[in-house]
This record gives sequence, structure tokens and C-alpha cells, in this order.
Amino acid sequence: MSGPEDTVRLAHGGGGRLTRELVGDVFARALGNPILNRMDDAATLELQGRLAFTIDSHVVSPLFFPGGDIGRLSLTGTVNDLAVMGAAPLYISAGFIIEDGFAIAKLERIAQSMRAAAREARVQVVAGDTKVVEQGAADGLFITTSGIGVIPAGVHISAAGARPGDAVILSGSLGDHGIAILSQREGMKFDVELKSDCAPLGEMVRQMLEATPRIHAMRDPTRGGLAALLNEIALAAGVSIEIDEAAIPMRAEVRGACELLGLDPLILANEGKLVAFVASQDAERLLEAMHSHPLGTGAAVIGRVLRPGETGPGDDASRSPATAAATPDTGSRSRNRVYARTVMGSRRVVQMPAGEQLPRIC
Amino acid sequence: MSGPEDTVRLAHGGGGRLTRELVGDVFARALGNPILNRMDDAATLELQGRLAFTIDSHVVSPLFFPGGDIGRLSLTGTVNDLAVMGAAPLYISAGFIIEDGFAIAKLERIAQSMRAAAREARVQVVAGDTKVVEQGAADGLFITTSGIGVIPAGVHISAAGARPGDAVILSGSLGDHGIAILSQREGMKFDVELKSDCAPLGEMVRQMLEATPRIHAMRDPTRGGLAALLNEIALAAGVSIEIDEAAIPMRAEVRGACELLGLDPLILANEGKLVAFVASQDAERLLEAMHSHPLGTGAAVIGRVLRPGETGPGDDASRSPATAAATPDTGSRSRNRVYARTVMGSRRVVQMPAGEQLPRIC
Repeated sequence: MSGPEDTVRLAHGGGGRLTRELVGDVFARALGNPILNRMDDAATLELQGRLAFTIDSHVVSPLFFPGGDIGRLSLTGTVNDLAVMGAAPLYISAGFIIEDGFAIAKLERIAQSMRAAAREARVQVVAGDTKVVEQGAADGLFITTSGIGVIPAGVHISAAGARPGDAVILSGSLGDHGIAILSQREGMKFDVELKSDCAPLGEMVRQMLEATPRIHAMRDPTRGGLAALLNEIALAAGVSIEIDEAAIPMRAEVRGACELLGLDPLILANEGKLVAFVASQDAERLLEAMHSHPLGTGAAVIGRVLRPGETGPGDDASRSPATAAATPDTGSRSRNRVYARTVMGSRRVVQMPAGEQLPRIC
Repeated sequence: MSGPEDTVRLAHGGGGRLTRELVGDVFARALGNPILNRMDDAATLELQGRLAFTIDSHVVSPLFFPGGDIGRLSLTGTVNDLAVMGAAPLYISAGFIIEDGFAIAKLERIAQSMRAAAREARVQVVAGDTKVVEQGAADGLFITTSGIGVIPAGVHISAAGARPGDAVILSGSLGDHGIAILSQREGMKFDVELKSDCAPLGEMVRQMLEATPRIHAMRDPTRGGLAALLNEIALAAGVSIEIDEAAIPMRAEVRGACELLGLDPLILANEGKLVAFVASQDAERLLEAMHSHPLGTGAAVIGRVLRPGETGPGDDASRSPATAAATPDTGSRSRNRVYARTVMGSRRVVQMPAGEQLPRIC
């Protein structure tokens, strides 16, 4: 039986002795390293060059799900935001907001999971903060992680970098994280347990850049899924994109769950996948590099950036049924559009999803 | 009257069109700059040298208080953690966790307040993230900020750096933030409104380091107050410290409120103060530099780090009444202790506060 001794209490957030004990017993034990252990107000790091810097708050519900938990997710989420900028992820800081009454055993499990993910990603957690709020003022635990990485010379990746003619490469099966979370929430059962794809992409990206440093744009399809990612790139780069739905790798369970739940697979969140834009002559070499890494064995070219003049015929295409009602088309007729060639051979417009369908997915 | 149109909704956290709109209308409008506006997965920064890197989650309640709000607090809190390491604060990232139904007008006010604080602190907000949780899953708004600064050559500040004989300098009046928040919560009224001291300390620290780069240790007395800060330094540096209560600058209203509420002023949180440890021969020069900055006009030497052998007589001193019951003394008899010379001339041990007294102060 667990008593109040086994839970986080408000006093653990007071900045005094109990805060020190919680940080020492749970976080420093799991995540400790010479920089973190100094417990200074800020970590000091020796770095130079072009740095990538990012932050992500994680509010996923439930906290534990097939294939991961909020600890692994918060670590890999930030690592991946650095990786898709071409950076070698190095240092992470983490802010914990904990609800009074949260079991310390659960917190330990989550810290251990962050530790394992940090090792996998070859990063160190060098700074942290713990706050506690009263019962009902937060839903268990939120973790915000910030990260720093170093971008190698010669690498210039940006959402705005996608160019006409580029191949669009997806690193593996779409939608595993989104459906793993949803199935956990809805109590859905599959013959084979569907797991989140939650994994750190830094090492695969390193291999990709070794094969060709000339990746133009890269992003991970998390919240909002592939549909949001492609629309963001189209807008940032001022291009239109066409993907081929039949070319998108997807597990049968994910496809089935989408049909059951009436979801467009293109809006499902992923936590261990990326989409890269490269000149078509570099695509083969990049694919090879991805296939040689465990997280990229399913990588495939799923589309291309259209050249000016290629965008006309599809404009009268029917809209995606999942998003057409929510997002009236207010853009120009033919620029910065995302099209999908359907399995039936027709062409539809893939809209930026509005956002209401999948709360607290990460 | 405000309708659902004027509030943040779950869909604003979905990563699609509504997320983009919220980020564009509220955050980019208030905080935009060329780096943030790229809206890449991570900001890219050109930096070199020794960097400071920190993170802080902010859960202050109420969100708006005399002298500031959660926006100003979250910006200055992280800036100050960089500053007390001697770093010039440069870049901030911010993660927002928002409760469904939060008024967009309030969010705009908070973003504007961050903007003003960022200008004051001469930092840029270069990366951000927005998550929305359902009603009842968070208390309005939490902001986690992470920051990067550059530490000038020759500066080596660490909690472990305090040395026997060092002067202990406090930059101004103690407890303003803590009492401002508590009075707002409790509905207390003062003749003169007591404001939080919430302010960015980077510029004052720059002037201090110009006067003497040989500051040994520095920290800001936030959660846990001066009592926690001094105990942390004593532990990290393996020294004992004595302060003189009569030398501590404090407003009459703060002193009065502490008596009324039965609080030890030494545990009150501050958000625009710092404590510096320097060799006694450097103290006068450092004080002068602090006095010449608006945030340091009240700076005073409040104590010193004891030399070996100086710690004996006080060990039988009575404990702080506010903390003695909660924190049994388990340390060694005479090392790593903090003493206070009381206004009555006796000496008491200042314990590390346990932490339960002041939840959600920052």
C-alpha cells in the first residue's frame, strides 16, 4: 500500500530540503553526470560553432503507453527537433511540473526511462527544475525539455530550403505513435500490440549527412502529422508538393484503426520518423544511408516538390474528406499547395489540419 | 462579453492551422525576431566560448501580481539564473502549457510582458512551443523557459567557489516578491502597494564583473529564499557562513507582513536580487559597482564566510523557530553551517527550509 511518504508533496517544490531530496533521490540518481551534479543555477558548457536550440513541452496522456512514456517522449522529442536541423544533439535541460500526490515510484520509472533514452541518443541532461502544484492544478506530470546541438559545417537545413524537383523521403511507417496513444486511451485491442515509434533520430541523421550533407529541408511529423509538415514546408519554401499515398509505408493495424476511428492517417503524430527533402540525384544515396540504420529500414520516396507549371491540373481535385469541412481553402489557387495522388489514381488537396482531433498526443 | 472565440481551445494545441494562428497572432507578434520568425524546429545560433544553459518551469499563482506577471517572471527567472553564473544572457526559449478556455487577451498581455522584459534584459526569444490541455488538467497557464548565455573569459563562478573570509553581499531589500504574491493571494492591503522585485539582473552583473571578475560564487535567492541559498553554498563549498540580521535590507511592510503571517523573512522568495561571495578586499569595489546600478542601490554586506576555527561558539545557539521543528539537525556539529547574528546579539543556526510554507511562489 502506498502512503503519503511515497508521493510527491507540495513541499517537494518549495526549493528547500525536500526539493533537494527529491532531485537527489530521483533525478540526479537517474540522470546524474559531472555537469548536472554541480547543481549550479546554470550548466556551463564548452561549445562552438553553429548551434541549434529548441524547446518542447510534453503533456501526453496517458503518461505510460505502448512503446514509451512521457520520459522517453520528452527526451526524444527534443533530440529529434535538433536532429532534423542537422545538429548533433548534445545537451538537454528538463523542467518538471508535478501534481501533488504523484507517486514517486512512477517518477522514478519516468526518470529511468529518460536515462535510457539519453544514453540511446548520446546526450546528457545537464540542467533541471522541479515544480509541484496542488492536486487538481495539473494532470499528473508535464515535462518540458530544451536542447542544444551543434550543426556541422556545410549543413544548411531549413523548412524554407525545399526546392522544386526535390524528392520527399519518409523514414518509415506512418502513424504508429498516434494510434498507440489513441488505442491506449480508447481501450482498443490489436492482435499484435501496436507500439509508439518514439525513438531518437540523431544517429540516423548523422549517417544521412555523411551520405549527403546537401539535405535541403527536414522535419519530424509529430503533432499534426505528415499533413501539417508538408503544408508547413510548402508555405515556408513557397512550393507545392505532391505525394503518392500508395508509396507511404503504413502498418496494417494503423490503417485499420484509422478506418475504424474515421481518421486521416496523414494527420497522425509520429515520434521516431522524419521527412527529408533532397535533390532527386541525391535521393538514392540518402535512401541507402537510411536503410542501413535500424530506424530507417522502411524509408521510401513518397513524393516530390513540384516544378512551376506542374501544379495546374489538380486544382479541381476533391479535398481530403477529413479536413475539407474544417478548413475552407483561402490560399491562392495553385501555389504552396500539397496534393496527394490517391490509391484510386485521383488527386486531392491535403489541407493543413485544423487541430481538434487529437489532443495531448505528445 | 467573451465567447469561445476569445479563448484558447484544445484545437489550438493540435499542431495544425489553429496552432499556427495562435503562435502567429500572439507569440510571434509580441516576441518575433528574425530567428524566431523562421519557425524551424530549432533556432540556429552562432555562438562560441563557455556557455551557460538553464531551465525553469513557472507555475506562479496568481498569474498577475503587483510588479509583474508570469510572463515577466518566466523571462527574468531564467535570465537571472544565467546572470548569476556570470553569463551574458542572450537567447531564451519558452514552452507554454495552456488550459482550454484561457482568455486570449490574457495570453496577449503575458506575451507583451515577456516582450518588455526581454527588451529590458537584452535577450531574444528564439524558440517556442505551445501545448493545450483540457479544462481542469492545468491551472490556467504554466511557462517553462530555457536560456543560453556566454560566460566571459576569466569568470569562474560556482556555488562551490565560496572561500573562507569572503564577504557576503546582498543586492537589495529581501522578500518583496514573496510578500507581493502572498498579499495578493490573501487579499492583504498595505498603505503603500508592495510590488514584486521581479527584474533582469544581467546588466548589473555585467557591471559587477567589470569592477571585479573575481566573484567566487553568486546565486539569486528565489524559492527557499536566503536561507536555502546560504545553506546550498555552505554545502557546495564546504564552508560555514555567518550573516548579520541587522544588516539585511528589508522594507518595513515586508517585516510587518512576516510578523503578521509568522514567516521567517529568510525563506521568502526574491526575483530581482542576488547574493555574491567575494574576497573581502574586493567587496568595496563590488559594492560601488552595484550601487551605481538601479537594481543594486540597496546592496549591502550582510555577512561573511567563516574561517576554520571560527565556527565553535555558536553551535549551542538556538535554532530558527520557523524551521527548527521541521528540520532536525542531522549534519556535523560545526561544518557547512549557516549562522545568523540576531538583532538581539545572539547567534542562531539558519536551517535549510523544508519547503512547505510557500507553494507556487514562482
